[in-house]
Amino acid sequence: MKIVHAKSELRAHVTAARKAGLTVGFVPTMGYLHQGHLSLVEESKKHTDYQVMSIFVNRIQFNDPNDFAAYPVDLERDFALAREAGVDLVFVPDEGEMYTDSLTFVDVGALTKNLCGAHRPGHFRGVFTVVSKLFNIVSPDVSVFGQKDIQQAVSIEKMAADLDFPVRIIISPTLRESDGLAMSSRNKRLSADERERALAISRSLKAAEKLIASGERTSGIITAAMKKIIDESRPTKIDYISAVRYTDLDYVERIDTKSVIAAAVYYGDTRLIDNMIVDTAGGKAKCVY
Amino acid sequence: MKIVHAKSELRAHVTAARKAGLTVGFVPTMGYLHQGHLSLVEESKKHTDYQVMSIFVNRIQFNDPNDFAAYPVDLERDFALAREAGVDLVFVPDEGEMYTDSLTFVDVGALTKNLCGAHRPGHFRGVFTVVSKLFNIVSPDVSVFGQKDIQQAVSIEKMAADLDFPVRIIISPTLRESDGLAMSSRNKRLSADERERALAISRSLKAAEKLIASGERTSGIITAAMKKIIDESRPTKIDYISAVRYTDLDYVERIDTKSVIAAAVYYGDTRLIDNMIVDTAGGKAKCVY
Repeated sequence: MKIVHAKSELRAHVTAARKAGLTVGFVPTMGYLHQGHLSLVEESKKHTDYQVMSIFVNRIQFNDPNDFAAYPVDLERDFALAREAGVDLVFVPDEGEMYTDSLTFVDVGALTKNLCGAHRPGHFRGVFTVVSKLFNIVSPDVSVFGQKDIQQAVSIEKMAADLDFPVRIIISPTLRESDGLAMSSRNKRLSADERERALAISRSLKAAEKLIASGERTSGIITAAMKKIIDESRPTKIDYISAVRYTDLDYVERIDTKSVIAAAVYYGDTRLIDNMIVDTAGGKAKCVY
Repeated sequence: MKIVHAKSELRAHVTAARKAGLTVGFVPTMGYLHQGHLSLVEESKKHTDYQVMSIFVNRIQFNDPNDFAAYPVDLERDFALAREAGVDLVFVPDEGEMYTDSLTFVDVGALTKNLCGAHRPGHFRGVFTVVSKLFNIVSPDVSVFGQKDIQQAVSIEKMAADLDFPVRIIISPTLRESDGLAMSSRNKRLSADERERALAISRSLKAAEKLIASGERTSGIITAAMKKIIDESRPTKIDYISAVRYTDLDYVERIDTKSVIAAAVYYGDTRLIDNMIVDTAGGKAKCVY
């Protein structure tokens, strides 16, 4: 596995891989890898020959500087995990390699007004900008994003289509701990008590799935049931528990089109997110979370 | 010369050209070609083997719908001129091929607050967005922009660097009619009288060059002298006569760094722009317009 820090070096390797007839898969990360990230690489390997992963903690997507400062880093461990997962090249630029007096931003404004976008001003603009840069640096055929960050994944899918990036976006299901907690680099910040209480989030999604299976379609009833479960876990704060349409992430009163039910909840200082996609194709609602 | 309307078709041709070992040059236009556009192709031919030109009147960059509706179109003439200039492929997408419920925008906000950006809200955002799309569709090695649209050219140079588009941007000097009028597709809208009066703009740049050659460096004195000349031509309206730094297009009080002196003036309903770059490298100020 190659580890490169310069864009020029990365481009040379990717160009060589292409010349050798290989297709290129790309998984952008902020490091501190867990099985969730590695499952994205697994997905990418199904579709492409040469796997590129980037590790870059992208300051401009942190609306809270403390959150940026607290973001965990363990590159040696990351490299070992990436190697094991079959990554061919890891791109680890420093901030100077990525931003020099940058003035340009990419935004998919309409998709970021609800959910996390409403609570993290500037966050998604920072994500879209760095992902655009990475697409231009790596030129992948396929790039895989996790369902856990559903607003990010759906918006990047839209961004790539809107701006004609010659890349296919794949959204890969959320990986969970055995007790149901969605995997996240932030989980390590939770105290044992907070971690236990945080299980309410995935439990609330399960409850929503049951309601939907029983025929319930009214968003307000479903999210109220979820709120009741999450409230019982004494969350520090609930940012949102919402049902939105998949295509434009706008609120829906009824789940009668492909939708996302998503929650963002604080336990202590740690903000956790989780979601499920409700696919209504064929009249039956199928939940993926 | 190939004429293609679909992105997929264009990509197939460009891929074939690359496979044949050719480098790709790209000149985006809104059609109604004149010698100015053709000089961009000439410039592109100096650096690349295979010439792509796009012709697309990009609705989202028109802040005034009347201006969009009035934009002149003559595709047959354009094709003949492009063929003569040595263009290998013309890309003529319709609006549906370029935009389908697009929600994504690219912006270089800080570079668009002065000059034309201050008078054409949304214009540059529309330009950056379509140029990003075209870069992703064409994947050129080199793309050439005219100095006449200096704020556009400088901002796209910055956008391409900021977003790591793998393309080299070249800014090519303004072509002029024999009497000094900067070439523009809009010139045909001028009445004979308006066209005569509009010569004041290039005359004012010549006067500014003389002042600078005589040692004058104070922006206010230079632009006041330009305004006097333009006022005498009874313009319908002056949007601006300004001196800005080249790198960030922010106003400068003194021309002691690489700068742009630019004007936007209406004669009747027609808005004309012109500018000169003042290069102060080596202590001597060299004017290019």
